[in-house]
Amino acid sequence: METRREQIYSTAGSLFSRRGYAATSVRDIARELDLQGGSLYAHIASKEDVLWAIVADAADRFFAAARPLAASDAPAAARLRGMIHAHIGVVTGQIERATVFLQEWRFLSPPRREAIAARRDEYEGLFRATIAAGIAAGEFAPTDPKLAATLVLSALNGIPGWYRPDGGLSAEAIADHFADTLINGLARRV
Amino acid sequence: METRREQIYSTAGSLFSRRGYAATSVRDIARELDLQGGSLYAHIASKEDVLWAIVADAADRFFAAARPLAASDAPAAARLRGMIHAHIGVVTGQIERATVFLQEWRFLSPPRREAIAARRDEYEGLFRATIAAGIAAGEFAPTDPKLAATLVLSALNGIPGWYRPDGGLSAEAIADHFADTLINGLARRV
Repeated sequence: METRREQIYSTAGSLFSRRGYAATSVRDIARELDLQGGSLYAHIASKEDVLWAIVADAADRFFAAARPLAASDAPAAARLRGMIHAHIGVVTGQIERATVFLQEWRFLSPPRREAIAARRDEYEGLFRATIAAGIAAGEFAPTDPKLAATLVLSALNGIPGWYRPDGGLSAEAIADHFADTLINGLARRV
Repeated sequence: METRREQIYSTAGSLFSRRGYAATSVRDIARELDLQGGSLYAHIASKEDVLWAIVADAADRFFAAARPLAASDAPAAARLRGMIHAHIGVVTGQIERATVFLQEWRFLSPPRREAIAARRDEYEGLFRATIAAGIAAGEFAPTDPKLAATLVLSALNGIPGWYRPDGGLSAEAIADHFADTLINGLARRV
């Protein structure tokens, strides 16, 4: 069963992703949960703390999914394929929270915003390093690993804008298609 | 010289892209322009009308840039390369307004939101048709043109999240890199 705190994060994640963080008040969150605004403060200290909890938790999930794959001994293309599947799994598994992580994190106050910017860069670094390893191994054509990692993650991070859990296309099918096209795009032509 | 109305759109585009539409008031726009909120209403009817003007104008720019290329007689890969360059040119040429078009359009009220959703789908259709033509001609490997068009446009539409006009990378260089990778990704292996 979801704890009260988890309920708050789910409800806030839904509101933040639909209306945006700035346009959502603590009162809005309380109303969705049939609570008084005041009693919500027994569980959370501030609206920003809720945003921080959602964003930091999402960052943990992305790392937990992708880091073991990035560190494996498999060829770079196979690692990148696994990382694309893992990333899409996190995005589609909790689509509202992923949307908050991807779009609303910039509303955090400076120290937290910088912490998340650094974690995002570290996460992108897993993709940069995998692409660079693929180039070094001759699996991928020479390219700018930073720009290539940005392209790959931008394509994946667009998914919340159009994916519907009840649509005809499974997250697995999307991940297969995207991985095929992106890895083909990086591959060295022989 | 910018007309007063153009100044309003530029200022509103900047505020909407940074803070979000929902968190920006007409008073905020007026303050940035050193106007009274009331006197802004001599130029605009409502905040939503400003959003609509920005979004509809951006849609026109994307169509004006990509449609002639989509309709040309060139091979599909060359057409797609031109469309990627054109799209990135519009995004990077007016980055704040492009951000509003890409992210804030969903705050339009229903009839306008549906009109923009239809135009976005029509625009994506130019990419779908070009990819489908490339598959039919044997230039591209068989794939789902809808999913492939979504991948291409998601990659391009992530650019406002990281592009800096004064960064080391020109819009042209980004477009070349993205077009190389994406077209390589769609290409048929011989």
